[in-house]
Amino acid sequence: MLRIGVIGYGYWGPNLVRNFMAAPGSSVVAVCDLQDERLSPLRKLYPSIKATKNPIELINDSTVDAVVIATPVSSHFELAMATLKAGKHVLVEKPLAANSADAAGLIEMAAKLKLVLMVDHTFVYTDAVRKMRKLIAKGDLGEIYYYDAVRVNLGLFQHDVNVIWDLAIHDLSIMDYVLPHRPVAISATGMSHVQGQPENVAYITLFFKEAEIAHVHVNWLTPVKVRHTLIGGSEKMILYDDLEPSEKLKVYDKGITVSPGPEDVYRMLVSYRSGDMYAPRLDNTEALQTEAIHFADCIEHGTRPETDGAAGLRMVKMIEAAEQSLRNRGALVELDL
Amino acid sequence: MLRIGVIGYGYWGPNLVRNFMAAPGSSVVAVCDLQDERLSPLRKLYPSIKATKNPIELINDSTVDAVVIATPVSSHFELAMATLKAGKHVLVEKPLAANSADAAGLIEMAAKLKLVLMVDHTFVYTDAVRKMRKLIAKGDLGEIYYYDAVRVNLGLFQHDVNVIWDLAIHDLSIMDYVLPHRPVAISATGMSHVQGQPENVAYITLFFKEAEIAHVHVNWLTPVKVRHTLIGGSEKMILYDDLEPSEKLKVYDKGITVSPGPEDVYRMLVSYRSGDMYAPRLDNTEALQTEAIHFADCIEHGTRPETDGAAGLRMVKMIEAAEQSLRNRGALVELDL
Amino acid sequence: MLRIGVIGYGYWGPNLVRNFMAAPGSSVVAVCDLQDERLSPLRKLYPSIKATKNPIELINDSTVDAVVIATPVSSHFELAMATLKAGKHVLVEKPLAANSADAAGLIEMAAKLKLVLMVDHTFVYTDAVRKMRKLIAKGDLGEIYYYDAVRVNLGLFQHDVNVIWDLAIHDLSIMDYVLPHRPVAISATGMSHVQGQPENVAYITLFFKEAEIAHVHVNWLTPVKVRHTLIGGSEKMILYDDLEPSEKLKVYDKGITVSPGPEDVYRMLVSYRSGDMYAPRLDNTEALQTEAIHFADCIEHGTRPETDGAAGLRMVKMIEAAEQSLRNRGALVELDL
Amino acid sequence: MLRIGVIGYGYWGPNLVRNFMAAPGSSVVAVCDLQDERLSPLRKLYPSIKATKNPIELINDSTVDAVVIATPVSSHFELAMATLKAGKHVLVEKPLAANSADAAGLIEMAAKLKLVLMVDHTFVYTDAVRKMRKLIAKGDLGEIYYYDAVRVNLGLFQHDVNVIWDLAIHDLSIMDYVLPHRPVAISATGMSHVQGQPENVAYITLFFKEAEIAHVHVNWLTPVKVRHTLIGGSEKMILYDDLEPSEKLKVYDKGITVSPGPEDVYRMLVSYRSGDMYAPRLDNTEALQTEAIHFADCIEHGTRPETDGAAGLRMVKMIEAAEQSLRNRGALVELDL
Repeated sequence: MLRIGVIGYGYWGPNLVRNFMAAPGSSVVAVCDLQDERLSPLRKLYPSIKATKNPIELINDSTVDAVVIATPVSSHFELAMATLKAGKHVLVEKPLAANSADAAGLIEMAAKLKLVLMVDHTFVYTDAVRKMRKLIAKGDLGEIYYYDAVRVNLGLFQHDVNVIWDLAIHDLSIMDYVLPHRPVAISATGMSHVQGQPENVAYITLFFKEAEIAHVHVNWLTPVKVRHTLIGGSEKMILYDDLEPSEKLKVYDKGITVSPGPEDVYRMLVSYRSGDMYAPRLDNTEALQTEAIHFADCIEHGTRPETDGAAGLRMVKMIEAAEQSLRNRGALVELDL
Repeated sequence: MLRIGVIGYGYWGPNLVRNFMAAPGSSVVAVCDLQDERLSPLRKLYPSIKATKNPIELINDSTVDAVVIATPVSSHFELAMATLKAGKHVLVEKPLAANSADAAGLIEMAAKLKLVLMVDHTFVYTDAVRKMRKLIAKGDLGEIYYYDAVRVNLGLFQHDVNVIWDLAIHDLSIMDYVLPHRPVAISATGMSHVQGQPENVAYITLFFKEAEIAHVHVNWLTPVKVRHTLIGGSEKMILYDDLEPSEKLKVYDKGITVSPGPEDVYRMLVSYRSGDMYAPRLDNTEALQTEAIHFADCIEHGTRPETDGAAGLRMVKMIEAAEQSLRNRGALVELDL
Repeated sequence: MLRIGVIGYGYWGPNLVRNFMAAPGSSVVAVCDLQDERLSPLRKLYPSIKATKNPIELINDSTVDAVVIATPVSSHFELAMATLKAGKHVLVEKPLAANSADAAGLIEMAAKLKLVLMVDHTFVYTDAVRKMRKLIAKGDLGEIYYYDAVRVNLGLFQHDVNVIWDLAIHDLSIMDYVLPHRPVAISATGMSHVQGQPENVAYITLFFKEAEIAHVHVNWLTPVKVRHTLIGGSEKMILYDDLEPSEKLKVYDKGITVSPGPEDVYRMLVSYRSGDMYAPRLDNTEALQTEAIHFADCIEHGTRPETDGAAGLRMVKMIEAAEQSLRNRGALVELDL
Repeated sequence: MLRIGVIGYGYWGPNLVRNFMAAPGSSVVAVCDLQDERLSPLRKLYPSIKATKNPIELINDSTVDAVVIATPVSSHFELAMATLKAGKHVLVEKPLAANSADAAGLIEMAAKLKLVLMVDHTFVYTDAVRKMRKLIAKGDLGEIYYYDAVRVNLGLFQHDVNVIWDLAIHDLSIMDYVLPHRPVAISATGMSHVQGQPENVAYITLFFKEAEIAHVHVNWLTPVKVRHTLIGGSEKMILYDDLEPSEKLKVYDKGITVSPGPEDVYRMLVSYRSGDMYAPRLDNTEALQTEAIHFADCIEHGTRPETDGAAGLRMVKMIEAAEQSLRNRGALVELDL
């Protein structure tokens, strides 16, 4: 039984505790938060869990085998590094760190100490995303044309990071997991509508060596919630709507065949292929449950997590490039992933 | 009774004929198309209408008072100019012309000859768009934060113009009509997935002097059809879904108030305003019907159309800038509208 | 070229004229309506069509080969009978007649004179309904459990017939076309909310000899429009939503297997089968177009229409039984179809 | 702090425990289930709670102030009666009892011992339902015309009660709470598709003294989940869709005004009123949380619960009448509520 310590009991922490409590291979033995008032509901719900305001105490607690960090981004590096140095495995809330240098540092230390370093790219552990990866991997979509993601809602404003760090990272990590190629350049635009606060709306275009284009639209300030991803291929196309209760994934046998239309000056000879649509059955297991089990499993067998430090570093690099381009109103920034 | 001649009986022509036939103040007396096979259904449906393959013959036909041009973009300028020079009013399918110089030329000629020059920016004549303009004009939305439009579907590929000329112009013309300000710069990205053909996907960001940002996403190659526009303001927000049968417009009393949160390092003090939503009743009159009546009305009273040559020119300028930016993968292009 | 005369140019007439004009094998030569103001738009749109206020004149017009009747139900029998006696084929708007005796009379006369008698059960000619019939016929759904239809909206009140005659007949005719069995008894309830007017809401349950049940809910007075049909089978289930622009038909590989659960007093051992869903590609041809071609085709080859007099009579019988049950607040009425 | 004991830890029990643990005024001290394997997840999640297989032990536990019963219907009466006789307050999962005599017996005993007897009609404690009651109470809808509810899905089959006891009771209790009048008669139809098992589909019509009609459609065997309620009034109409994440309630300013149309034999003079729609802001507090607080509150202040024994009895009476009518294929059954 893996004994987990969780640092940060704000918005995401309670979900982590619930899932590591429910997961067969693990249990939560200690939780830390700087604000005591946040710990009182924990004390009522789980009288058995140690509650502390001191993260170092938790990290060094001999009854803690591994630490899960769900604190503000700025503290990820310090807390994760301390955990590793204490010889313990660590699962870090996304993003892995506030900059690529810190992310690289964590990877290096985990490798050196042979400890599991995993990043909480939650959506990678949903059945919908895993199914998309499989479909693309076995070539069902043919050549990939585009990847278009929209993640907007009236969201929780954050004062330490902008909407790219908060929301776009979800789509970038899904894209990183399902697409066969990696982007080589980025152009991003965006804006802040709250004086002196980080950007609350952003548009990111990713370019590839291949005839592929990706785009991510994130916004903290929309009246409706949208979670829409379109993936277009030469053979099939996917609509992934994470808000659909059951049919989150729809695979369309749609596309075109183009040939010059001699007799028609106005429109070329395009034959549209429009076949059946199907929605594959999906397992509804909560992603965090799958992820908690995977973390315990990697620790037990010393295997590499699907969302390892390297994946975490790629996300941070993409976000750094996107921010740089955004500051220059769309100017292209090359990527080296 | 205004006697109309229609040039171009391909995809859009039949709608124009039907509406100008049905409109009280007008009737269609002649139709021209270069392809005779297109004219045979017309002959069966409307045996009374003159059908010809010669546009010049139609333009000079003494029974024709005004000409509607629904031909490929490349021929707009030549046919519209010939119509004006024949001393006749003209309604041109969007875009007004293939470049801003031609568009300016038409405006000049129409002004000189005191003839009505109107562009078919169809959506401007829908009740939904007119309602949005009213709401914004009387300040219901407060300060405008963003305008975000998505117009994607498995569309008719065109070999003479790309998806920006074909689809984005709809959103740019709606934006131009409802927003209080005009963009000052553009960054656009996009791609073609059909060898040697125009771009079939594009992303356009528009910058304003004010704290406003606009974005248009158009794509000819998606498995589902989407017509979504989000307009965010400091007081209210709008969702305009043109595919909704009845409630195309939803006005949300939603927003935020931000103040620094001392006690919370993780999240600032943001109070979310979430009130009622309402969907204003809309008149379902077909836009082309309203437009046909407006065209006849402008000719009768010598008034300026809501979608006049100047509006048509602004669209062409924006599209030219967008294409220039797209060719340079998002490089900023200044606008002078 | 079949020359059609259309009687009744109210709500449905214009659609009939437009489709018989467009259909390759037919053309409309004459239209009749008692109200002259209704004929003026026709005169403007189709100057070539004879417009008259006298139905008998149209029926006896030597240039008319077949007559389409789209008048109030009360006049269907008289006009259809006059048409048959004039030796002409007839297509009657649903319902075939105001009572089963009249319907039987028309069938008899058409048989005697060897003329085509067809009823306009429009939905039978949609690709969605034809596809459902095929799926059920080849056993894909397994044993049929239920057929549930909802057809509600803020509808056109009629003062001569109630909502069953107006709306339920659509669902009864679809059901009659796709189901393998025919109902043997009916229980119906409903109510009128307009003093002295026919029922505007009704609920109809249909019983079968087999373990099958059907239900139709119709309402003229709902704020939203719903066109929902659920068909449940032991192997597969169908959701048919006629308002869906493209995926009108969804076929679900869902169901249950039941076995007594020894260890569980609270819930039995039910294994739920939940596989993929798919939406078959559908042809979007307008139903009336297919129907117009079918009518001309039946006349040319002397074949029996898919919606012949017998089908029309079954609908009238079901509706008569439903009304009788409704008057007695759900009392069972046996059916003999 | 009210100390709760929960009997039954199957499907619903865990939700009850979670909510009574979280509610400020109460805490769960003991949980009982006949199946030990159900208690192990409880032991892992809440090591602090006493877990037992013996309901009598829990009822008599001196640390238990009140008991919540979430067992199969057949055991409700016996366990609730035992609880009352032990001098403790009781909250019974719906339905209150397996028949009206038992329900009446519990009411009598609770009254005699001055104990709180509450039924878990969960939906009554949702903000959407409470809002509907308010709108109707202040006359916004005008005269009520109809109440139409659909509650279908691929549901958990139960072997002890049919779909009316399991699902329709939700709609009957919502209707009972929001409508000004009570039904006077019932006609119901339905069927079982699993050999020797209770009905899995049912249609219930409820008649009123007033010009009002209600209908409930429930089904355990549909491929899609639907939670739709339409309430039509002379002034306004409501669509309540419980599956909508945010806009569960839509209020339509729609209706008709009817006057005889002299000049039109085909359709009477009906003027359709179609104004704005609005969706009132709703509080998203989990219903069980509100309910748990209400239960504790009623006990503390000795007040009568909104869903008291009398409400529970009315539900049981309606369901008994519906079953009797269903057995006779829709034959009318009078109601005395």
